[in-house]
Parts: sequence; structure tokens; C-alpha cells
Amino acid sequence: MKIAGKHYRTIWPRPDETVEVIDQLQLPHRFATQVLRTAEDCADAIRHMLVRGAPLIGATAAYGVALAMRADPSSKALIAALDLLGSTRPTAVNLAWALKRMHDALHGLGHGDRFANAWAEAAAICDEDVEVCRAIGVHGLAILRAAAAKRNGKLNILTHCNAGWLATVDWGTALAPVYMAHDQGIPVHVWVDETRPRNQGASLTAYELGAHGVPHTIVADNAGGHLMQHGLVDLCIVGTDRVTRNGDVANKIGTYLKALAAKDNAVPFYVALPSSTIDWKLAQGADIPIEERSADELLKMTGRLPDGSLAMVEIAAPGSPGANPAFDVTPARLITAFITERGVCDANETGLRSLFPN
Amino acid sequence: MKIAGKHYRTIWPRPDETVEVIDQLQLPHRFATQVLRTAEDCADAIRHMLVRGAPLIGATAAYGVALAMRADPSSKALIAALDLLGSTRPTAVNLAWALKRMHDALHGLGHGDRFANAWAEAAAICDEDVEVCRAIGVHGLAILRAAAAKRNGKLNILTHCNAGWLATVDWGTALAPVYMAHDQGIPVHVWVDETRPRNQGASLTAYELGAHGVPHTIVADNAGGHLMQHGLVDLCIVGTDRVTRNGDVANKIGTYLKALAAKDNAVPFYVALPSSTIDWKLAQGADIPIEERSADELLKMTGRLPDGSLAMVEIAAPGSPGANPAFDVTPARLITAFITERGVCDANETGLRSLFPN
Repeated sequence: MKIAGKHYRTIWPRPDETVEVIDQLQLPHRFATQVLRTAEDCADAIRHMLVRGAPLIGATAAYGVALAMRADPSSKALIAALDLLGSTRPTAVNLAWALKRMHDALHGLGHGDRFANAWAEAAAICDEDVEVCRAIGVHGLAILRAAAAKRNGKLNILTHCNAGWLATVDWGTALAPVYMAHDQGIPVHVWVDETRPRNQGASLTAYELGAHGVPHTIVADNAGGHLMQHGLVDLCIVGTDRVTRNGDVANKIGTYLKALAAKDNAVPFYVALPSSTIDWKLAQGADIPIEERSADELLKMTGRLPDGSLAMVEIAAPGSPGANPAFDVTPARLITAFITERGVCDANETGLRSLFPN
Repeated sequence: MKIAGKHYRTIWPRPDETVEVIDQLQLPHRFATQVLRTAEDCADAIRHMLVRGAPLIGATAAYGVALAMRADPSSKALIAALDLLGSTRPTAVNLAWALKRMHDALHGLGHGDRFANAWAEAAAICDEDVEVCRAIGVHGLAILRAAAAKRNGKLNILTHCNAGWLATVDWGTALAPVYMAHDQGIPVHVWVDETRPRNQGASLTAYELGAHGVPHTIVADNAGGHLMQHGLVDLCIVGTDRVTRNGDVANKIGTYLKALAAKDNAVPFYVALPSSTIDWKLAQGADIPIEERSADELLKMTGRLPDGSLAMVEIAAPGSPGANPAFDVTPARLITAFITERGVCDANETGLRSLFPN
């Protein structure tokens, strides 16, 4: 996607065989990039959420393995890198998927071949992610086009967290259809859930929609039910960090509440995902490990002071503790359909197998 | 309730015939009070949310009428004060209730009697609010006691926004039973919804629970569904700004989402209210006017800098608009029961009439 007229991916290789990423901790206040030189740099970037979003986490981990192989192509170093990167965040399954793919591509090779192959494999993962997201966009666009045809006036879409191009290598998952609809002249407007506690909606989704010129409005996470009760939401689209075999979906905390409200108001609720997000090994959402993050994310807030400088302020009652579960699980029964790179399917094992029989 | 060992109400008359309130805009960062000298001062305090919470809004408006009568006891001034104060905020019906009561007490009196009677009537409204909230506490305590008896270990209660003593003259509505349970040795723990965009949970509810020593944890509004899915919430209690005849409830935006999650997880969902919150004239929640407030409440945030001073920061993507509906309506079908000053009843007209036949 473009920022100020220049095309960017969220992660790209540099000629000096390091990797550069958009520093998402600085958004929406500043656009900045960061160079990652080692597997440790990549692990830190994932852990501290310089990069985030399930597909981008996978892509960054893949490059982390490649950077480890540049430094030391031994099997011991390979295993250490896989362990290090695999331990950064627990919920998104794309991380394990990308690491397994790197392992499978590298472990049978001689040491001398490992770095070059790792570098090429990480690039392939990125290129494939772009193509997968583009395909999700095409399939989702058909849904938006049909919804817009029934609607007189603009189509109101609600999304939670950021499943846009900043969460992937390019295009996004949930937002890919929105960008395509907008580009084709379908009048869309996005309700952007703020997405406390890290505010990925207000800071990242609003930023990228604004950069692309898509009409949108930030709302508190609390507002979505009210909007749906008043007919102001035509459909919801969100991304996901892990889908279990039965169609349950882990996504950013609060997704479940929006799915409940959508069901209660007969608003279609779609989940957009690359197939790398499907965890065929897990039977149901209750089995997904849910990350608990620091309460500081809830109790402190960074923003712009009037002079443009950034400051972190403490916002809650002094001394009161906080808890910060980062994801919740939306049961398959609340999901209208999945939008994948191979098409649209029911949110259950039969639906998933119909598109991904292997 | 006590702050640092000293008993406070949220509003009280001063010997010089002005009124003093706790300045809730400064909480939780600083404890400060403000003197209100005129009806305009009271209207501003309500409009800018120096005071908030349906019962406290009513009490402040009553004193606003009294202060108007001190300045000018004419009928023209009475009507002007009622109009001014009645236009401050649209959703809480206690405001109209208190103003009607002041009108009925004053309009038949000679000018010379109006101020003294107004002053006494406002004080009576405050004293009655304290007694009503205490009675709500007693009736709610029975529910908490029964729930605790079934629970091995501490009772986990989730609340949204602030319906504690800061929302009333003293005791609170939703929190009155919690304080009584805590004081009687029932082990309670409160999940405090942050309550975006104004953060009344993280700033006011956490503040007053902390001041009283009640164990509590602040969570993002997004987290409640996840907590309920994992058996970490035994019951929900919230307050309300207006209850319609059929039992629908307007309360802080996001309440509806928590009620949906409670229903989906078989968690009891109680609404605590003084009977002054019942709007017998309105048939259903869809008829309640919902206040739209400034998007700045969503896009900017005030907090403490490391040196203890306060700063406001802009937190969202620059240029992105926001929308800020302040309340939503929870349908009666999602509510387990009402807790009122006369006891507990079903959330429907039959239930309300059983306690309030007139």
C-alpha cells in the first residue's frame, strides 16, 4: 500500500542482507522504519509488537531464521533460532506455521546452502502472503459488492483491531476487500473499533484507511452494539490469529462481544484468514493458548502533546491493578462465513475441508 | 464514604448558602472540590461532567434550582432555571424527576418562601438518595450473600462505568451491595470495566473501591466476555440512567455488550436503580434519547506525567474522525432482575408494578 504516494510493504529485505520493517510502535504518531540484523532483533520486534498481526508475525519470524543462518548455519543455531522465535508470542498460529516451513526447507541442507535458501524461503513466504491477501480481497469483494447492491447508499462495515495491510505483508486480510471495494467505486465507510488496550484500531486501522482515503470513523469498543441496534452496521469483518478445526476463532480481545452483538441484530459477521491461520491440530477454541500481556498496556497511554512530542501518561486510579488478556475466542456458531484465499466457506470443519481438503 | 479517613458525600450545602461538590473531572489524579454558587454553575457542572451519575445529576439540579431561587425567587426565574438545568443532559431521567419535584414544591409558594423551601427540598432529595441507595445495598447484599454461599472462595463481580457512591450522593447503586458485602466479610473482588471513552471505571470506580479497600482489577471493556467464558465472573451489577416501563435499560455505552455476554455464559446480570430512574411514560428503550458527546472524549486522553503533573495527549490517527454515543439500551430480556430500594423484581412492567404500584 502507499504512504504519501510511495509503495511500501510492512517488511522487506535490504541489499546488505538485513531486514527492514515499519515500526508500528511509532504509528500513528510518526512513520518510521527499523532495521533488524539478527534473529534476536526479530524476536524482540515480535515480542514488543514493533510488528504485529498474525501473517506479519509469521513473515518476520521467517526472516529471523534467515538472519540466524547468516550468522551461523549450524543445526544447533537453527534449532536455537526456531526456539527463540517460537517463544515470542503464543496465540497466532502463523508463527508456528512459518517456523515449521523454514525448518522443513532448511534442516536437510548442507550448512553452506542454508542462508541462501532461508533468505529465499522467507521472501517466498512474504510474496505468497501478498498473493494470499489479494485473493482474500477478491473473494471478500464479491460479498461487499452483493451487500452494497442491496443497500441504498454507503455500505457500513465494522472492524475490530487491525487486520489491514499493517497486519500482513501487504493488502491485509479483513481490510483487503474494503480497499478493493473502495478502489472500484463501491461507497464504503468503516466503523473502526478503537481496540483497547493497545488501540490498534484508532492508531493503525484508522491510519492506513486514512492514508488510502477510505471513509472511516473511530468508535469506542463499547459502541458497536449500539450501532448495530440502530441499523448502522451492514456487516462486520475481522481477522484472526488462529482458527481451530471446528471453526472457532481466536482474535483480539473483544471480538467475541462484537460477534454476539452481530448475532443479536442479524448483522453478518465474517472472518478473513489465510489458510496458514488454520490450526488443524486443535479441535476447538477452548484449546487455544491466550496471551496475557502487561497491565501497563491498559493503565498507561502514549500520545501526542500539543507541541507534537510524544508522552506517556498514567490514566487509571493510582495503585489499582489491571489484567490484560490479549485475545478471546469467538465460537463458530456466531460466524457467518470465513473468507479465505480459496473462497468463502462455512465456519466449521466441513466448510474448511471443502476448500482445504489436505 | 470515606476518603483518607474523612466522610464525604459527593454534594453538600455550605453555611454560606452555596453548594460544594467533589470535582470528578480531577479524579483519579487529584481529590478536589468545587463551589457552585449559581444555577448556571450547576448546569455547567452537569454538562461538563464535574458531577455525573444519574442520581447525582438529579441532586445537583435540585440545588441548582435552589440557588436560582436565592438570586431571584420570581416564577420567571424558576421556569428559566428548570429549563436551563433540564437541557444539560438528555438521557438520565432522574434529572427531569428532580426538576419536577422542585417545581411541584415551589410553584405554589409566595416568592418569600421559595428559597428556604427549595434549599430544604434539595437537601431532602439528597438525604432520600442516601437512604434509597442504602436500601438498594441491603437488597443487593442478600443476592451477593446467596451467590457467595454457592461459591467456594471469593465472589467475582463485574461492573461497567461508575455506579458507586461518586454517581450518587452516597453509597452508590450497583456498588452499594458490594461495599456492604465487603464490610461484612464476604470475600468480593470486582472486575472494573475501564469504560471508554471517559474511563469512569478505571478512574472513578477503581478510585472509590481502592479508597474503601475493596479488591478489584481494571480490565479493558473488551475483556468481559473472555472472563465470563472462563468462569471468572459470578455476576454482573450495573447502574442505569433510565428504565422504561417494559424493563429496558439505558446505561453507559457498552452495557448491552456485557449483558449479551452474560446471557451467553449464564452469568446473572443485575441492574441496580432508585425508583426515580424509572420512566413510566416511556414504553420501551428505543424511545430513550441517547446523548452524542464530543469525539474529543475518544481521541484525547488526560493522565499523569512522570513528574505528577497532568497532560492531555492525542492518541488516535491524526485527522481521523470519531463518533461518541454515550449510552446504549440493554433489552429487558437480558436482565436477570432489578435491585431497587423496595426489593428485587423481574425486569418487566409486572415486576416494576409489583414494587411500585403507583
